[in-house]
Amino acid sequence: MQFDLITTDHNSRARAGVLTTDHGAIATPIFMPVGTVGSVKAVTQEQLRSDVQAQIILGNTYHLYLRPGLEVLSAAGGLHRFNGWDRPLLTDSGGYQVFSLAANRKIKEEGVVFQSHIDGSRHLFTPENVMDIQRTIGADIIMAFDECPPYPSEYRYARKSMELTHRWLDRCIQRMRETQPAWGHQQSLFPIVQGSTFKDLRTISATEIAARECDGNAIGGLSVGEPEAEMYDMCGLVCDILPAHKPRYLMGVGTPWNILENIALGVDMFDCVMPTRNGRNGMLFTWQGVINIKNKKWATDFSPLDEQTDCFASNHYTRAYLRHLFAAGEILGMQLASIHNLAFYLQLVKAAREQILAGNYAAWKTTMVKQLQTRL
Amino acid sequence: MQFDLITTDHNSRARAGVLTTDHGAIATPIFMPVGTVGSVKAVTQEQLRSDVQAQIILGNTYHLYLRPGLEVLSAAGGLHRFNGWDRPLLTDSGGYQVFSLAANRKIKEEGVVFQSHIDGSRHLFTPENVMDIQRTIGADIIMAFDECPPYPSEYRYARKSMELTHRWLDRCIQRMRETQPAWGHQQSLFPIVQGSTFKDLRTISATEIAARECDGNAIGGLSVGEPEAEMYDMCGLVCDILPAHKPRYLMGVGTPWNILENIALGVDMFDCVMPTRNGRNGMLFTWQGVINIKNKKWATDFSPLDEQTDCFASNHYTRAYLRHLFAAGEILGMQLASIHNLAFYLQLVKAAREQILAGNYAAWKTTMVKQLQTRL
Repeated sequence: MQFDLITTDHNSRARAGVLTTDHGAIATPIFMPVGTVGSVKAVTQEQLRSDVQAQIILGNTYHLYLRPGLEVLSAAGGLHRFNGWDRPLLTDSGGYQVFSLAANRKIKEEGVVFQSHIDGSRHLFTPENVMDIQRTIGADIIMAFDECPPYPSEYRYARKSMELTHRWLDRCIQRMRETQPAWGHQQSLFPIVQGSTFKDLRTISATEIAARECDGNAIGGLSVGEPEAEMYDMCGLVCDILPAHKPRYLMGVGTPWNILENIALGVDMFDCVMPTRNGRNGMLFTWQGVINIKNKKWATDFSPLDEQTDCFASNHYTRAYLRHLFAAGEILGMQLASIHNLAFYLQLVKAAREQILAGNYAAWKTTMVKQLQTRL
Repeated sequence: MQFDLITTDHNSRARAGVLTTDHGAIATPIFMPVGTVGSVKAVTQEQLRSDVQAQIILGNTYHLYLRPGLEVLSAAGGLHRFNGWDRPLLTDSGGYQVFSLAANRKIKEEGVVFQSHIDGSRHLFTPENVMDIQRTIGADIIMAFDECPPYPSEYRYARKSMELTHRWLDRCIQRMRETQPAWGHQQSLFPIVQGSTFKDLRTISATEIAARECDGNAIGGLSVGEPEAEMYDMCGLVCDILPAHKPRYLMGVGTPWNILENIALGVDMFDCVMPTRNGRNGMLFTWQGVINIKNKKWATDFSPLDEQTDCFASNHYTRAYLRHLFAAGEILGMQLASIHNLAFYLQLVKAAREQILAGNYAAWKTTMVKQLQTRL
């Protein structure tokens, strides 16, 4: 994996780059649609390619390990072949889901024992087997196994948790050194900075993570309920410590304005379920602001979902039609809203990149953040 | 509307033709996907055009009248503009839904009083206002308002119901004469033959309907629970009476083998929710037979859904992946199964047409009916 930093904004820390994997190049900053169990919910792989223009998508280790399971994924030849997505893939390590979804989880030095949220079966995730699982899934980017503390966390807990994450990281790195890519293409490990909302812990963690000299670095444990200002504080602090010549990935963030603010702090990669999950609930993100399409006010609005987003779903279908689909409980409503929101997110980061390259990012961002938050 | 009969099979009554509407030509025999409330469930309009290759779709008067309602449809400029489907549209008259879905329906000479299944509100459908509603929806083909008796029906009830349907038909014809197309394109009325499973009633009804000399004719009240042999008996009897130079539409039918058998009896047009509804439940219709994709046996079957159906969904995705999507409750599973099934249905009638043109229909049909029913 190679990361070429093309330019850094003069009036912010925003960067434009190119991340090259064996499954293709990714222009950064980038947003990565979430394909939890191997499918970006309600969107086909062709729509992801041509309408959304996704460059990389996520899979989730916890979900894929439980279902379809490693036997099936291994027989298929990895997730790329299983789901027919031939561009880059990143897998979350399962750390976050073990803490947010699984039952009766118990954290030990060795790893985490948990029960499946599907059938209650007992499983053990360790730094080693989570690397092996991600090898089998065949992700181009593999995330380190971490503990993600909740917000708020007590200082003492956050510190112990962070230290455990660092020890686990070394075991992840060791395991990756001892093993080979499962399906012929290169697989890069990204470690994760933790430390909750404590500046000294974030400083320690970012310094530790930077010292591992991995191909890229991630920031975890944010967007878990803390105020936005705290998220930006922590993210800015960490970005300043993480090496400039490696891609920085802020996990699980966020709203369109969160993304623009964090790009300004030096983040290159984002993922979030918001465009698809909120889309399935009738919330549209547009260049003019946020739309709740279920609202009666759209019943006879025959303008397109969003003229400024260059996507068939955004331009061909009207707000009135989409509102009708949601009122009638039609699946097509969830599909169109998801496609539009993802296309918008991808075009938002593309526009951000163009502004960075043009040297206008900081000013543009200030205007856009306000506009994107407008409730239409 | 114009119907050009191109050829009739020598060894069956199968026909190949072209039905021309102001929204384009339809090669017959044809299958029409059902878009109940203005959306073919789980399939986008682009997928209907390019993947399914649908030539005409259905809308449902009962559903569209209740939601989004005539005010919205009228403001939109008709259903074509509302849902962005620019090929031909046919609307069911609502007769069938009033009897199968609505509550507290009361049939009178004037029409049917019923309560909405959505909010319990009271409404009256008459032959006249159902014509007006379909004018507003803007269908290219408008169905007469009929009563569809259940199976089994007593002879006396079936006869009275049929006679009412004939009287209503004359009021539909009169109303169509008195009114103009709502949106500039021609709208043709198709009357509906009823008579339950009684040969003499079907003979009377087909003779009455034929005498009205409408642009096309439909056969209703079949595929409502009667044995397949009775459906074929009634359909064959009616087709022999209905004029050969007008298209014949068998409503609500059916399985792939039902369609092939009825084509052999002289039917030109079909609609059915089966490819989409059964698809959403994990049933796939293929050239080799029927697949229940939820079955464990497909877990590691990495062959495409159906190699012989020329459609991206059918060829690009594997049975193992689709099974996983259904096991995980992913919406994408319903989408892919619906697209595949519809593409298969459209290619089935296309193949039937080619066999008719080649003079091989009867022999081909016999082989196919057996193969299509195989449980894989």
